[in-house]
Amino acid sequence: MSPAGLPPASLLAVAAAAALAVAAVAAWRRPRPVREVLFFPSRPCCLEALLAEGAPARPCPCPLPRAETSLSRLVRRLLSARRSLDLCIFSFSCPQLARAVHLLHRRGVRVRLVTDAQYMGLHGSQIGRLRHAGIQVRHDQHSGYMHHKFAIVDRRMLITGSLNWTTQAIQSNRENVLVVDDAACVKPFLDEFERIWDEYNPAHYSF
Amino acid sequence: MSPAGLPPASLLAVAAAAALAVAAVAAWRRPRPVREVLFFPSRPCCLEALLAEGAPARPCPCPLPRAETSLSRLVRRLLSARRSLDLCIFSFSCPQLARAVHLLHRRGVRVRLVTDAQYMGLHGSQIGRLRHAGIQVRHDQHSGYMHHKFAIVDRRMLITGSLNWTTQAIQSNRENVLVVDDAACVKPFLDEFERIWDEYNPAHYSF
Repeated sequence: MSPAGLPPASLLAVAAAAALAVAAVAAWRRPRPVREVLFFPSRPCCLEALLAEGAPARPCPCPLPRAETSLSRLVRRLLSARRSLDLCIFSFSCPQLARAVHLLHRRGVRVRLVTDAQYMGLHGSQIGRLRHAGIQVRHDQHSGYMHHKFAIVDRRMLITGSLNWTTQAIQSNRENVLVVDDAACVKPFLDEFERIWDEYNPAHYSF
Repeated sequence: MSPAGLPPASLLAVAAAAALAVAAVAAWRRPRPVREVLFFPSRPCCLEALLAEGAPARPCPCPLPRAETSLSRLVRRLLSARRSLDLCIFSFSCPQLARAVHLLHRRGVRVRLVTDAQYMGLHGSQIGRLRHAGIQVRHDQHSGYMHHKFAIVDRRMLITGSLNWTTQAIQSNRENVLVVDDAACVKPFLDEFERIWDEYNPAHYSF
């Protein structure tokens, strides 16, 4: 018999039940893993409610639907950033995604943007505008393309896929974007971002 | 007391211990989840040992290194297919990846290939060769691009990313490929593949 008068087996059973209860509470409190897949084309929609700074005084008068679309879901994921947004985007000309990035920058989120030297100067590119707004931008200086299209939110959520951030890709192409917070996927992309960010430091330019 | 003379608490403890043992064995026997991230450019390497049909009579005499690279890892993942390989590839001109796909087809793996109508006819495209070998190929008939670059192995492993299957992309670009077998990621891509495969059925062509 145990000191409390219970048989040792009873104590074991109580301990097992308590351990199960603790595990159940821990599982219940753990945030659900993020696994979202977005497919494009995404039909045009009004994103004013998401992208307006502060509460809009009145609903946007534009005729576009306010529906949830792949683009609105992508914007929501980006706007969930609280501390940092690391971007590696080959071609970036979509004004709505540029507004989302600019908004995060104004909110004090640390935005770093890597892009492709040959595509950043094309007509419609948003890179100049974002750089002008004070966002740190770096680019390659190779003959190959910086062809990644990924974003890392708060160093813990990866957004990656085939989608270039262009209106053509969003509205006309078959594309995919995968959103995951699995550390085994996020960590290699974080490391790749830091490698590229360092490699593309203007202090290392060779021309 | 229980019929066997043990107190019910002892039975509970034995049952809990047995359940824990069963769970431990199940966890030990469960295949480890696949989470692999490949980055490119990948330096040129000899893939003969992987791509030769049957055991090669002698080592390949080419001067390329036999090192493990991102490309060799990608080829290994593809060659692990036993039943099916579903491909959605925007631009496909890499001869080594075409050999891997052709090899799977000859091994009796059911290969289905979706590609982009505008890119499939470009110089160096491997699509004609694969179709000629008897592989089923379908393509879009839209103005937008079929810009996906993903593969699904045996309906359970997803290979996706920014990488087009071209030698230029593999050897010169900054690219990523993510390999995962998480059903929450694989299932939406499987559904997208089936949607596209059906939509691009030649019986539905409108011209």
